Amino acid sequence: MALVVQKYGGSSVANAERIKRVAERIVATRKAGNDVCVVVSAMGDTTDELIDLAHQVSPLPPGREFDMLLTAGERISMALLAMAIHNLGYEARSYTGSQAGVITTSVHGKARIIDVTPGRLRGALDEGAIVIVAGFQGVAQDTKDITTLGRGGSDTTAVALAAALKADVCEIYTDVDGVYTADPRIVPNAAKVDQITYEEMLELAASGAKILHLRSVEYARRFGLPIHVRSSYSNNTGTLVTGSMEDLSVEQALITGVAHDRNEAKITIVSVPDEPGEAASIFRTLADAEINIDMIVQNVSTEASGRTDISFTLPKDDGPTAMAALQKIQERVGFKGLLYDDHIGKISLVGAGMRSNPGVTATFCEALARAGVNIEIISTSEIRISVVCRDTDLDAAVRAVHDAFELGGDEEAVVYAGTGR
Amino acid sequence: MALVVQKYGGSSVANAERIKRVAERIVATRKAGNDVCVVVSAMGDTTDELIDLAHQVSPLPPGREFDMLLTAGERISMALLAMAIHNLGYEARSYTGSQAGVITTSVHGKARIIDVTPGRLRGALDEGAIVIVAGFQGVAQDTKDITTLGRGGSDTTAVALAAALKADVCEIYTDVDGVYTADPRIVPNAAKVDQITYEEMLELAASGAKILHLRSVEYARRFGLPIHVRSSYSNNTGTLVTGSMEDLSVEQALITGVAHDRNEAKITIVSVPDEPGEAASIFRTLADAEINIDMIVQNVSTEASGRTDISFTLPKDDGPTAMAALQKIQERVGFKGLLYDDHIGKISLVGAGMRSNPGVTATFCEALARAGVNIEIISTSEIRISVVCRDTDLDAAVRAVHDAFELGGDEEAVVYAGTGR
Repeated sequence: MALVVQKYGGSSVANAERIKRVAERIVATRKAGNDVCVVVSAMGDTTDELIDLAHQVSPLPPGREFDMLLTAGERISMALLAMAIHNLGYEARSYTGSQAGVITTSVHGKARIIDVTPGRLRGALDEGAIVIVAGFQGVAQDTKDITTLGRGGSDTTAVALAAALKADVCEIYTDVDGVYTADPRIVPNAAKVDQITYEEMLELAASGAKILHLRSVEYARRFGLPIHVRSSYSNNTGTLVTGSMEDLSVEQALITGVAHDRNEAKITIVSVPDEPGEAASIFRTLADAEINIDMIVQNVSTEASGRTDISFTLPKDDGPTAMAALQKIQERVGFKGLLYDDHIGKISLVGAGMRSNPGVTATFCEALARAGVNIEIISTSEIRISVVCRDTDLDAAVRAVHDAFELGGDEEAVVYAGTGR
Repeated sequence: MALVVQKYGGSSVANAERIKRVAERIVATRKAGNDVCVVVSAMGDTTDELIDLAHQVSPLPPGREFDMLLTAGERISMALLAMAIHNLGYEARSYTGSQAGVITTSVHGKARIIDVTPGRLRGALDEGAIVIVAGFQGVAQDTKDITTLGRGGSDTTAVALAAALKADVCEIYTDVDGVYTADPRIVPNAAKVDQITYEEMLELAASGAKILHLRSVEYARRFGLPIHVRSSYSNNTGTLVTGSMEDLSVEQALITGVAHDRNEAKITIVSVPDEPGEAASIFRTLADAEINIDMIVQNVSTEASGRTDISFTLPKDDGPTAMAALQKIQERVGFKGLLYDDHIGKISLVGAGMRSNPGVTATFCEALARAGVNIEIISTSEIRISVVCRDTDLDAAVRAVHDAFELGGDEEAVVYAGTGR
């Protein structure tokens, strides 16, 4: 008997009808002879409604109480899902993150999983029950307070539980059929990828592909746990995330796909003294403010001035915090000004095969040039090239690059509505 | 420094504005030099909305999951209340029933509190924080599953925490100014009672007065904890529930008040064999089905038939269960039929002084007769007389009795909208 962990996002359980449909899928998995552990997000708009309530009461709610509030969302969806499964004649028990043994740091709103102690879940599974666990939440190791894991938290919960329970596979249900060579809403003939390595999936996730969160892929890679990304609206096989680049044959496709990201902004620090330690001081300030910066460019300093400009990209959400933190050190560091630009887009090309193929960057840039897209920043890893351009050029850039590398399939991709957490 | 436990019902925290108003009241109590522990119900209609969701998913939701679902309601209200208090510059921390150490039996939907281990609350209070606790919920001692306490659960939570924390007083905030001599919605000149004994309050609560739940009064009496019933819409002094009948002076008012109840039904078991053990067998069956029966009447058996009729009243909610349980034993016990009547009302007169005054019953019955109210069942305790009549006669009965004992005050009573849990 295999153990399958399944994760359903908020759109999959948005209302009573969808919850019943998900219950049927879970029972089908059970009937096929598997033990089943299900991780579930809050129903559709519940989280947004709770956030709205919080802001009606307080402009800046304390993190501990905000987490207490938001975790009510999964509590509702998981109890309803357990009821729907009972209704089909199967025993199901729901567990909060705390009850399921999801132990985290105490950073409210973006806690990290430290350990998983799934004793209660294991006991319930051994008794033949289907187990339903609240995604996105845990309990702090030191304070015993309830925490949330931040964006992508439910995916991470699912992978962490799958690893702790030694599950055979972790199925992540979403509103698309799997990982595509590009966003099908931009590129209609984008093709589904059957299998992808952890490294490629990590690069795609880091590059803005919303299908799986970075943290969950990192977690799965560490434990060698296969993730099956598939649609909750069909029975099609999705995309299997497994294996490392070392296992790949030389016939491996050159390029896996094109990702894009509209959620970054660019900050330019103007005329920084070009002396040792100045850049370090700036990036230490940003790190202390818990801001993840992405791409960095430092202009070549002209010897005459002894000054240089530093630009970097970061999530738009962190923009105000970063600007405030930098303003505070302006006098001490001695730079002349700060520019903020949130009309940028980022396009990335990812593929395990590109590391041994020197022509990829050239083809990539030529495609952008032909589409009239101006490159503002460029950065590369072993298996990825990313470029920042105007946000208004982004769709054209994605289509041009997807075409240039001939990633398209023969059929139109299937797209469903909705989003997950 | 005194320790005050306050309980706010669902209507007091029905929306963001009311939550902010309650937060101000809590902070005022803190500023006056008290430690404060607050017990809160779910916001206004939240519980009904969650019940509705459950029934969309399952006609008969399992108790464990139903409790898991409903407890999301207090989680939302308590987190919002803590945020609102933070906003006023005071530290507040919210705790679920489980976190607050409310240990219960494992009977889902109507669990009973076994023990309270308020170590975390005590620690938070000692650190100067205002403590907010979810009412109506706890954690089962054996299964560690989340439970709810059933009707009046939040009042009981408040009294139990007050007892465990050795609080100086437990303030129960409601939508009226205190305990009245009758429901002011029926009797406009009903007068507020300044002080009342536990015994009288118990009789009023058992007789349908919704202001405090029976269980919470029992709990307070056991620990000698004073309860102050007051309005969350005014700063008026309410009604103090304290002291026993033994402490009363002989000048104590004869009668405390009139209560009424529209939530009972009457079952008549027709033609039961009048033999030893038959009634016992019937009431054992009802007890095993966890049905609380209230008033019982057995007709005098006519010797010719050797049979008798038994009538009893019970909460309307338990009607279907009771009828089903009795039908199962009809053949074995050998009674001829079952009648169900849910158009009854119950009026009760309560007063510690009546035990030494033989004229009370006569005055009571004369008042009903003058109002044209027919008595169907009558029962008495040392400090209470109750009568069952037609539900359509109930308001007239309450007014007639209230007048006959001259319970009215000089002013119109203040009534606010809304209900609590």
